[in-house]
Amino acid sequence: MSEAESPAPSDRPVYQVEPWCVREPELRLDRLAQSESVFALSNGHLGLRGNLDEGEPHGLPGSYLNSFYELRPLPHAESAYGLPESGQTVINVTNGKLIRLLVDDEPLDVRYGRVHHHERVLDFQDGTLTRTVEWTSPADRRVKVTSERMVSLTQRAIAAICYDVEPVDQPIRVVVQSELVANEELPHLGKDPRVSATLESPLVSEENVANGTKVLLLHRTRNSGLRMAAGMSHHIEGPESLAVDTESSDDVGRLTVATRLEPGQRLRIVKYLAYGWSSQRSRPAMHDQVVGALAGARQTGWDGLLEEQRQYLDDFWCGADVEVDGDAEVQQAVRFGLFHILQAGARAERRMIPAKGLTGPGYDGHTFWDTETFVLPVLTFTQPDAAADALAWRHMTLPLARERATQLGLAGAAFPWRTIRGQECSGYWPAGTAAFHINSDISDAVVRYVDATEDIRFEREVGLEILVETARLWRGLGHHDVEGVFRIDGVTGPDEYSAVGDNNVYTNLMARRNLQEAAAMAMRHPDLAERLEVTTEEAASWRDAAAGMLIPYDERMEVHPQNEGFTNHARWDFAATKPEHYPLLLNYPYFDLYRKQVVKQADLVLALHLCGEAFTAEQKARNFEYYESLTVRDSSLSAQTQAVVAAEVGQLELAHDYLGETALLDLHDINGNTRDGLHIASMAGGWSGLVAGFGGMRAGGGRLRFAPRLPGGITRLAFRLRYRGNRVKVTVTAESAVYELLDGPGLELRHHGEEFMLADKPVELPIPQPTSGPPLSQPAGREPAPRRIDPHGGDARHRSR
Amino acid sequence: MSEAESPAPSDRPVYQVEPWCVREPELRLDRLAQSESVFALSNGHLGLRGNLDEGEPHGLPGSYLNSFYELRPLPHAESAYGLPESGQTVINVTNGKLIRLLVDDEPLDVRYGRVHHHERVLDFQDGTLTRTVEWTSPADRRVKVTSERMVSLTQRAIAAICYDVEPVDQPIRVVVQSELVANEELPHLGKDPRVSATLESPLVSEENVANGTKVLLLHRTRNSGLRMAAGMSHHIEGPESLAVDTESSDDVGRLTVATRLEPGQRLRIVKYLAYGWSSQRSRPAMHDQVVGALAGARQTGWDGLLEEQRQYLDDFWCGADVEVDGDAEVQQAVRFGLFHILQAGARAERRMIPAKGLTGPGYDGHTFWDTETFVLPVLTFTQPDAAADALAWRHMTLPLARERATQLGLAGAAFPWRTIRGQECSGYWPAGTAAFHINSDISDAVVRYVDATEDIRFEREVGLEILVETARLWRGLGHHDVEGVFRIDGVTGPDEYSAVGDNNVYTNLMARRNLQEAAAMAMRHPDLAERLEVTTEEAASWRDAAAGMLIPYDERMEVHPQNEGFTNHARWDFAATKPEHYPLLLNYPYFDLYRKQVVKQADLVLALHLCGEAFTAEQKARNFEYYESLTVRDSSLSAQTQAVVAAEVGQLELAHDYLGETALLDLHDINGNTRDGLHIASMAGGWSGLVAGFGGMRAGGGRLRFAPRLPGGITRLAFRLRYRGNRVKVTVTAESAVYELLDGPGLELRHHGEEFMLADKPVELPIPQPTSGPPLSQPAGREPAPRRIDPHGGDARHRSR
Repeated sequence: MSEAESPAPSDRPVYQVEPWCVREPELRLDRLAQSESVFALSNGHLGLRGNLDEGEPHGLPGSYLNSFYELRPLPHAESAYGLPESGQTVINVTNGKLIRLLVDDEPLDVRYGRVHHHERVLDFQDGTLTRTVEWTSPADRRVKVTSERMVSLTQRAIAAICYDVEPVDQPIRVVVQSELVANEELPHLGKDPRVSATLESPLVSEENVANGTKVLLLHRTRNSGLRMAAGMSHHIEGPESLAVDTESSDDVGRLTVATRLEPGQRLRIVKYLAYGWSSQRSRPAMHDQVVGALAGARQTGWDGLLEEQRQYLDDFWCGADVEVDGDAEVQQAVRFGLFHILQAGARAERRMIPAKGLTGPGYDGHTFWDTETFVLPVLTFTQPDAAADALAWRHMTLPLARERATQLGLAGAAFPWRTIRGQECSGYWPAGTAAFHINSDISDAVVRYVDATEDIRFEREVGLEILVETARLWRGLGHHDVEGVFRIDGVTGPDEYSAVGDNNVYTNLMARRNLQEAAAMAMRHPDLAERLEVTTEEAASWRDAAAGMLIPYDERMEVHPQNEGFTNHARWDFAATKPEHYPLLLNYPYFDLYRKQVVKQADLVLALHLCGEAFTAEQKARNFEYYESLTVRDSSLSAQTQAVVAAEVGQLELAHDYLGETALLDLHDINGNTRDGLHIASMAGGWSGLVAGFGGMRAGGGRLRFAPRLPGGITRLAFRLRYRGNRVKVTVTAESAVYELLDGPGLELRHHGEEFMLADKPVELPIPQPTSGPPLSQPAGREPAPRRIDPHGGDARHRSR
Repeated sequence: MSEAESPAPSDRPVYQVEPWCVREPELRLDRLAQSESVFALSNGHLGLRGNLDEGEPHGLPGSYLNSFYELRPLPHAESAYGLPESGQTVINVTNGKLIRLLVDDEPLDVRYGRVHHHERVLDFQDGTLTRTVEWTSPADRRVKVTSERMVSLTQRAIAAICYDVEPVDQPIRVVVQSELVANEELPHLGKDPRVSATLESPLVSEENVANGTKVLLLHRTRNSGLRMAAGMSHHIEGPESLAVDTESSDDVGRLTVATRLEPGQRLRIVKYLAYGWSSQRSRPAMHDQVVGALAGARQTGWDGLLEEQRQYLDDFWCGADVEVDGDAEVQQAVRFGLFHILQAGARAERRMIPAKGLTGPGYDGHTFWDTETFVLPVLTFTQPDAAADALAWRHMTLPLARERATQLGLAGAAFPWRTIRGQECSGYWPAGTAAFHINSDISDAVVRYVDATEDIRFEREVGLEILVETARLWRGLGHHDVEGVFRIDGVTGPDEYSAVGDNNVYTNLMARRNLQEAAAMAMRHPDLAERLEVTTEEAASWRDAAAGMLIPYDERMEVHPQNEGFTNHARWDFAATKPEHYPLLLNYPYFDLYRKQVVKQADLVLALHLCGEAFTAEQKARNFEYYESLTVRDSSLSAQTQAVVAAEVGQLELAHDYLGETALLDLHDINGNTRDGLHIASMAGGWSGLVAGFGGMRAGGGRLRFAPRLPGGITRLAFRLRYRGNRVKVTVTAESAVYELLDGPGLELRHHGEEFMLADKPVELPIPQPTSGPPLSQPAGREPAPRRIDPHGGDARHRSR
């Protein structure tokens, strides 16, 4: 169903609020595309949107393979040196989810006939999407269909569907067509630049085979020259009189099962799907790889796959779960977020984690800085191997990043602002190439991971080289002025409503850390440093640049300007800006946005979180207050940082409001674009707001620190973390925090600044009285929706704006 | 001939140095495209490149009608609010210059057979291009061809060619085909963004008529919906046995004359050409308009047209000529420049004056700020009506400029950075939309014209509204900071190697003047001001903003930063920049250029010239020295300003070098892109360098001021100016200046600060001793070519670098 045909969305809730699943109690055609994203299944390698089994109606059909992309030209009205001329776009690969059903020759289509019952449940513990439908065909045949779908977290190439059909009251003839379809027709997505470019028929057929219940389709992309294979194999249970047939052509593979079912009889088809792709491997090799994966999955069987999935997830939750009492929506959302972050990163294995995961084609399927800044912290403390893999992917792209730096006339490596395979794909350099902070965001993720895991092998094989090359970049990007101050001019910070400014505070602080950590890490590994040609002189020059780094401060306003001169600019006229003119970037020129004090997303405030050591407590409070009044949150990346810093400066209720906004972004489709895929960085928002915000968790230098404090609406918060071989559980109430070592050798922690050892025995420590700050104000109309306490229940409610 | 086929250019001079013409003594196939631009004829309405009569070989065929354009899409890799999605491109219209010759069935083509003699002369006094060829065909038939071509300055729609053929030694059969050809095939111009987009077959045929010796072709453009008509009519003289035939089809009109010529006999064909275009008028109206123009031209006759042309030019030179003794190249160049400026502006009549005039398709045929800043000053003091017309065109586009301001969320009017008809066509906003100074450049041209002419009617009908709307723009674009300082943030000044900076000194000074002059002009015309809804409060707010305008100054470096923070930036590493890496914009990303101290073209130095009153003499000298060391002159607009300011600060020899560079830019093809059309702003360079530079001419507030001083290489300089109904001649030698009133009521002048009345009697005043400044340095390898004194002659020579 294309946008134009969508029924007008209704305001009633789409999903039920439950702690361990997302349940859609009735089919909401007005929210179809959103639900396809919410119900997407993925293991980081293979992603299937939550399309209905029968394919139609759909919001947007989607099956994705991590890093399988096509090239498209990037046109420029006025070309210039260094602008990328070709972009990479994720493509919808062969759809293996399709299972069509004919009931007495009438296709099951929820738009026709009568739907008596339609429920879908995404289960965070089972890792499955279950659908139950009871439907009467226009010719009055009633049928019950149950389908359960999974993308295996244990068998990376595999997805599987268990599809059951039963007649309800009278005998029916059923035909089930299980399909593989390549080059599906996609709805046109309109002109919003944030939505993926639609590429028509990107796959060229190379081979198709049908054999028994098995079908295989091999394709390659036209321009990027990548090869993929998709295969399906089936296990069929039903009455004895089954007619089974398979066929294949260039773009379609089909298994057809026909039978007659009496009431009480059931047809069950287990469909095993396997996917693979490669830029190098031959057709026979790809063929065999997929056939092999199918054989493995069949050997495990449907029940076996379910069992493996459950075990994998049990293990994950046991080191990652977050419990929230008092705000059931946030409880659901934080687990929903953790589940999708795991899905995005679990088996990416040296591929990128895209901004939308594998849940939709938004942002062309690219990865940005948000993966390292928002997603990897969650994985680092819950599923550290996945964080290491994601950084190992960055390491693999170093040759391309070095090439890009050379092209830009810079030293070291310049990682791309947006990419799938490592090449810069940004078509607008002021908010792309100029946003050099991505380099320190990556190096900071390395430092964070190494600190949290003491993974020396990673430090030597992956970490050091990234740090060295980014330090080289910063050293060359900045310069000493006549007074010896080290300046980084003309770069863009996180806030995309400013660009190409001098001495962005966030960038300079992160670059300073990058330079310092690179020098320290090189000192720890002199042998490797020598191999990377790091001399003591070079390391000294990094320390020197870090020591001289300019951190601008506006003495008059007593705040840090986001970048030099920012606080002199005119304030945006918020009072005159109508609600429908947000997001501002769709209604005002960059020219106007860049020259005024208006902030799309936390920038200086992100520095308050990630570089807290550079600010006094008063500076944090004053800065936060100042930027609160300027920040419009037109980026989904903003609220979680505001939640964390609001909590730190004692604005606990405000922090709770922002927590709600970030955690519920996709479940409530707050930005209206969940259709294009989930905001994976916002999936981290619930965790960040709860753990870093109300838990006050900070890590670094081998120390985990906490400063827990709860808002009125949350009566209890408990979370689990992994740190240096320990699994720690922290349980917070209004009065105290209990620290518990679940396993591991024990460690020193800090609670509101006070050090203590955590070993066998839990430690309970009191929470100091909060000093609530002054009421803060946001730009007119941009206040977060309050999470009010329900006087009768205790549950917080989200009031949508 | 496409670029790929061009012979390698040789270094020997292409043109002879003569005071009143450009003579090409032999055909230089290696400079064909350059010569087509140099030899272009135009009256501002119709322009014909100097293509050979027979059409081939060519560098680039070109016939243009002012403001006749086609639309083309402006693609953006990432679209954004306010970016223009459609651009305007000048198109090559029906070619009426073609006259093909067959000699005993072999076509005259200089690439075959033998050329004994080939000379072309562009005469600045006659306003004609004359060509004489003596050629032997491959079959050994020798023929002499003389053609003379003009685009009439007196009959705006008309061009004419007088074409003579004579046998040299034996009888020949000749066939002459005089043609009109639409949709000529154009060579591909490569990827340089500064070169026009080639549009294939942009004209759709509407009508074609052949009748007697007359042929007419009517076409319209596909997307912009403009209609044009081109007609030709012939007068033929020759032997009695002439066979004449005409024919026409959609895209071709042809008159064929066949005869046999004995030695001593001659075939002469006078071809009258008429062009017209309209966005509104009907086909019959366009048809009749062109036929009428042809009838008028035939009535005047070839000799009559020549006579009118000569008179028109005599009148022009008599108020505009500049004489230079001691530097014959500059003497030729300054007249060449004045001639082409006259051609670009004379009969534009409420159409724009494009950056390339009508000499080539470069810059898509757009007009930019250079017209108002560099070209209109020359016209204001030599051909003031043409300056008034050009500004009246800007006035006509005010509704579009108001619309654009509204789109950008601004008050008043925002004139486009580049356009043909008034709509913004810039595809790169940081160097387009953000360069708001164009608005004050236009208003300054209004103020300059009114000051020079006291044209009250213009002030009331054109000037006031432009000033009011631009003042409104500035008032809204800037803001008062907490200390009451008026700031203009986030705009781009003239220098395109910086962008989107705060408080560009040039912009702020020009905006200040714009605000002041608007308030003053509104006060002079209270009736009109009321009609434009200018209240006394609004005018007061303009004065207030002007009074509070921030002009940043770097106390530490004792210079004015080009914009706030500029002098803190790293200096470009000039020593490491190879000569082949200029122009920098083709070899470095904007990102790198914007963040460093490197100047493409005079910006702060342009402020020293145009807003000299804002600087002390010492500040001028220090600023000039500082920016000299940073300015690479990758823009052809730079050298003339550097020449003027160098002269003012006493750097006379350096001024002479820059004068040579700007004046000879196209004659010597210094930038290698004269093929795409002449740099009309540089055509003003010779005049500016001599009159404003060595003459020290400044005007304003009803006063003409001079501070003449000559460099060693120029022994005498004389120039004529029109000012407030007076025609003044100034003759400068090393020792003194003589001021003469050629006609007019007389006026008060200033000579090196000293006031005197100039009436009937010439006044001779001594030149104070020059105080030569310290030697200045330019970026390594970017020194201007010195104009050395020839010890044996006295003529300066240009040494090309």
